[in-house]
Amino acid sequence: MIVILKHNPDPGQLGGLLDWLREKGVTVHTSVGEANTILGLVGDTSRLDIDLIAALEIVEDVKRVQEPYKNANRKFHPEDTVVRVGDTQIGGGSLTVMAGPCSVESEEQVVTIAKAVKASGATMLRGGAFKPRTSPYAFQGLGETGLAYLRAAKEETGLPIVTELMDLSQLPLFQDVDVIQIGARNMQNFDLLKAVGHQEKPVMIKRGMSATYEEWLMSAEYVMAGGNENVILCERGIRTFESYTRNTTDLAAVPVLRRLTHLPIIVDPSHATGKSWLVEPLAMGAVAMGADGLLIEVHNNPSHALCDGPQSLRPEDFDHLAKKLLPLHSFVAGMEG
Amino acid sequence: MIVILKHNPDPGQLGGLLDWLREKGVTVHTSVGEANTILGLVGDTSRLDIDLIAALEIVEDVKRVQEPYKNANRKFHPEDTVVRVGDTQIGGGSLTVMAGPCSVESEEQVVTIAKAVKASGATMLRGGAFKPRTSPYAFQGLGETGLAYLRAAKEETGLPIVTELMDLSQLPLFQDVDVIQIGARNMQNFDLLKAVGHQEKPVMIKRGMSATYEEWLMSAEYVMAGGNENVILCERGIRTFESYTRNTTDLAAVPVLRRLTHLPIIVDPSHATGKSWLVEPLAMGAVAMGADGLLIEVHNNPSHALCDGPQSLRPEDFDHLAKKLLPLHSFVAGMEG
Amino acid sequence: MIVILKHNPDPGQLGGLLDWLREKGVTVHTSVGEANTILGLVGDTSRLDIDLIAALEIVEDVKRVQEPYKNANRKFHPEDTVVRVGDTQIGGGSLTVMAGPCSVESEEQVVTIAKAVKASGATMLRGGAFKPRTSPYAFQGLGETGLAYLRAAKEETGLPIVTELMDLSQLPLFQDVDVIQIGARNMQNFDLLKAVGHQEKPVMIKRGMSATYEEWLMSAEYVMAGGNENVILCERGIRTFESYTRNTTDLAAVPVLRRLTHLPIIVDPSHATGKSWLVEPLAMGAVAMGADGLLIEVHNNPSHALCDGPQSLRPEDFDHLAKKLLPLHSFVAGMEG
Amino acid sequence: MIVILKHNPDPGQLGGLLDWLREKGVTVHTSVGEANTILGLVGDTSRLDIDLIAALEIVEDVKRVQEPYKNANRKFHPEDTVVRVGDTQIGGGSLTVMAGPCSVESEEQVVTIAKAVKASGATMLRGGAFKPRTSPYAFQGLGETGLAYLRAAKEETGLPIVTELMDLSQLPLFQDVDVIQIGARNMQNFDLLKAVGHQEKPVMIKRGMSATYEEWLMSAEYVMAGGNENVILCERGIRTFESYTRNTTDLAAVPVLRRLTHLPIIVDPSHATGKSWLVEPLAMGAVAMGADGLLIEVHNNPSHALCDGPQSLRPEDFDHLAKKLLPLHSFVAGMEG
Repeated sequence: MIVILKHNPDPGQLGGLLDWLREKGVTVHTSVGEANTILGLVGDTSRLDIDLIAALEIVEDVKRVQEPYKNANRKFHPEDTVVRVGDTQIGGGSLTVMAGPCSVESEEQVVTIAKAVKASGATMLRGGAFKPRTSPYAFQGLGETGLAYLRAAKEETGLPIVTELMDLSQLPLFQDVDVIQIGARNMQNFDLLKAVGHQEKPVMIKRGMSATYEEWLMSAEYVMAGGNENVILCERGIRTFESYTRNTTDLAAVPVLRRLTHLPIIVDPSHATGKSWLVEPLAMGAVAMGADGLLIEVHNNPSHALCDGPQSLRPEDFDHLAKKLLPLHSFVAGMEG
Repeated sequence: MIVILKHNPDPGQLGGLLDWLREKGVTVHTSVGEANTILGLVGDTSRLDIDLIAALEIVEDVKRVQEPYKNANRKFHPEDTVVRVGDTQIGGGSLTVMAGPCSVESEEQVVTIAKAVKASGATMLRGGAFKPRTSPYAFQGLGETGLAYLRAAKEETGLPIVTELMDLSQLPLFQDVDVIQIGARNMQNFDLLKAVGHQEKPVMIKRGMSATYEEWLMSAEYVMAGGNENVILCERGIRTFESYTRNTTDLAAVPVLRRLTHLPIIVDPSHATGKSWLVEPLAMGAVAMGADGLLIEVHNNPSHALCDGPQSLRPEDFDHLAKKLLPLHSFVAGMEG
Repeated sequence: MIVILKHNPDPGQLGGLLDWLREKGVTVHTSVGEANTILGLVGDTSRLDIDLIAALEIVEDVKRVQEPYKNANRKFHPEDTVVRVGDTQIGGGSLTVMAGPCSVESEEQVVTIAKAVKASGATMLRGGAFKPRTSPYAFQGLGETGLAYLRAAKEETGLPIVTELMDLSQLPLFQDVDVIQIGARNMQNFDLLKAVGHQEKPVMIKRGMSATYEEWLMSAEYVMAGGNENVILCERGIRTFESYTRNTTDLAAVPVLRRLTHLPIIVDPSHATGKSWLVEPLAMGAVAMGADGLLIEVHNNPSHALCDGPQSLRPEDFDHLAKKLLPLHSFVAGMEG
Repeated sequence: MIVILKHNPDPGQLGGLLDWLREKGVTVHTSVGEANTILGLVGDTSRLDIDLIAALEIVEDVKRVQEPYKNANRKFHPEDTVVRVGDTQIGGGSLTVMAGPCSVESEEQVVTIAKAVKASGATMLRGGAFKPRTSPYAFQGLGETGLAYLRAAKEETGLPIVTELMDLSQLPLFQDVDVIQIGARNMQNFDLLKAVGHQEKPVMIKRGMSATYEEWLMSAEYVMAGGNENVILCERGIRTFESYTRNTTDLAAVPVLRRLTHLPIIVDPSHATGKSWLVEPLAMGAVAMGADGLLIEVHNNPSHALCDGPQSLRPEDFDHLAKKLLPLHSFVAGMEG
């Protein structure tokens, strides 16, 4: 961390700051210039509150050199994290394909889709029981009943389930869920992050609509600080001025996160674009760029889906896509080898 | 609502859509063109799920003409909503000044600040007991103890309290709170919105970091749909590429919301800018543009604040500011009259 | 400037860097830490090419402490710049009101509007002769003829003219123009900036649609580096995800630029919002926040304007607005005094 | 185009509007509702000025159904445009690889790099002679001399040249240039677009920093409206709040533009990310998503490049990348076949 002091800082205040920093176990190197004095802080600064320092009257600016996340940081954990779920795994060179409907609508629907996507190569079933909707008048999901239908589909197909937790009061219902999804709108619902950090199921955190990489990793850090190291990150697009697509998919997140963290990285081209015809090219790009997996909406009747129909693939489209993704993944892996 | 059909829509599907719309009580006007057929939907379309229609294979695009919010919409409620809190009110021509520390740190601190801001003209006390922090290693607020200190300050000064609710499990602790604040990061925590919609205390909703006016009003609609009409909106800046200020304050939100809704509008220049020297000019601008009030951070020792020190005013700065805001408010009101 | 070196930098490369910096007259303070070595550069770093340093293999990151602009920087020029134009001035405590049509359409039109806005208190006439339009099929402005009509209006009313220069080939036609406007889309047309820096007329630079404060000031620096110190900055909104208004007006730019630079700051609420009913509240806010002036579109028949009708005020609306702005300016100035 | 009228529109004004629209050859379908009357305009609306209609007092809103661009629109030109340059071509299933230094620094430098990138598989040489720099104090390019060095490299290697034109006064110097690049900052320099539309060399238009797809295509339309149909589009990232990368690369632009237009689409991962280690994964993604080509910065000594060193690959890195891109392109093409 670098602290830039104002011109002619009050010596008493400066002494106080230096004492406080030494107390925290931080070594300070001072560069006295004509315009500014610069303090270089060396040691573990991840637990220093940058706001506290910036608030001091003698301080002009504070800049971080080290990342504020520790558990999620590849520097301190060079090996890739591999999250094991049932017979499958996320990360470690495999390609995870999570597929299923945006909303669970009926047992028949979700079982039918689950069988279809499994036959095409999906490794996990995704489906929404609790649905975050911007309108209070829109369909809010089947809730507990939806979870029961997902369980039926899991029993039928053996596919592990990933589904969204919206509030910590719902946690007791998630016993048969395999991966807990934290939605984009809850990426900084810190009480929810703490709660899932204190249980053992893997947690997949979607990137917030306007979250930076650092904030996203800090949300992972919240979960990991509670003791749960099985965290997965899911890019789902960020909000920009471009309104042709629902969001702007930031595929560079894949290689950037690969460098910053050891956690697996999934891409959700369905929510990111909001258009089913963009799912295939974005999924291809994500795989070519090294994503650990994809989250893809599949619906047996997108024209009658109760939510997000325009972005869902039909099972036959998903089958076509899966038949391209898996060879592409092998081809790209072969070039790396 | 306008539905633009693809070229040569399947007559069976079109018939199905038209029947479904009529069932919903919507009248349909059809314009057949060479390239596109356009359906004009007339009636109450706020409860139509736009996604459902957009998902149909025969539909190219759907555009809303009417706003999706009803309870919050000025068209259906032309009179300004005035929220009464203790002896004071929010909206209806008065200028509400909510002031106090970002974080409650001790009883002495909050009582001292409460007395000072009351003497300068503040009408409500704000202070954080539960604090949303991006880092799990940062100070998270005093929680229940912080609420007790706020209660002490309220008893001492008579100022009503506004403080943030982060999770619905905390609601039972909020008995002595006067206005519940929903933070920017929870603006779309729909379970939390529903919960505060089913109780009676006024709710102040901060704008999400990348929320549109419409999404923000839909969050108000969530609360109002539960029966609680005492909703206040608080602009606190949106995230842009400009990083000199913490956020970009969108002061145009004040006149825009004035037109779109009947709910009171507060501006928070402290969080919006993150710099104490910008609080005064932004507060002046907000008042000149007709805001119903301000939310201002005041700390008796910003250099030692446990959070957000750089943006806090000292009590003497707040006093100086208040002595400008109130005359400006009267002057501007006088010009309108 | 602070240079953060990678762990274990190559001593030869480090020696080369230190020699090169000393050659440039920069003093270097070195802080050796366990993880990183930090170089604090002291002296005039505004002419150091940050990219050159960042490209070195031994360098992890470079952070500026000093601003890269010199002529435009208030630190080196504490007094406000006052730009004199005819009998009027921009900056220095006065309120400049530039008003007129988006596009010059006819001599009668522009003379009529000029007389009306002068009677209401405008101090300068604005009007477009060369128009940047996103569509090649839209009206592109009257060009040279439009300039002649503006000249006629200036002769009739005495109001100085501000109008946009789109390409340096048009410069010879601008003899009777008083202030040259550089449009938002040309804010980083560096050849154009250089050209207006080598002539004497004042130059008003609109902020680019996604420009930071620093980039905007660097565009002013381009003009000033050529010898022309009469530069005015005009905030006209930035692009965000909010599409209700054409742009998001960043009124915080007024106090921020006041601190960073000595140049006058104008606000254009007409282009920033794209809606005539938002012009008044934003103009009020800008004045309360200390803007040096406003740029306001006025059209005698907005319903038939050849461009940007929806955001133009009618002369009677402008008169109403001017009757509020001038007293507000005096009132706010009185409070400062 | 859809025109939404205000409640109870003035019949005289409405009649005037309907007459004017019929004059323009547009057929109007009227839907009268309780709240709003909606006009559906059918016919060629690309030459209607949307602002003119929106300005009318009786009009609440106008929404486009058809795209405002014609020449660039795939609807009216279903076949892919293939741009032929020397012995090579851009578009039509081939993969164009433009490589070379950000700035031309010396004849030896550019000839050396040109030979190296040709040997690795590049099909065109890129290099900057006129450089848009945000600081007037930064290196501005070698100008005419730089063009001479590029010519020498072309003579030596046979590689066609692509280089940036910053101002129309430089056009006479571009005789030996094969493709004229219009930089992101000039994407809406309309006089420059008109000028390159009236000459015959192919034009590559980089996306503006905050340009929408539609605005970008309208810039292509400016060139095509002048008669030059050889237009290439180049995605180079857009500005967002994420500052880890220089820009956010919008790879979805590739499939979106493929659908909206028939023009070839190139991706520039070097400028988009500003980090050399991100060039490879983004280039891989772009190829997997169907881009027609890549623009890649290569420098023989990135640590001493006069501009943009941190994002340049060394020739050996480029060789490694090229050896992956070409097989990937074939593999993906094979899956489509």
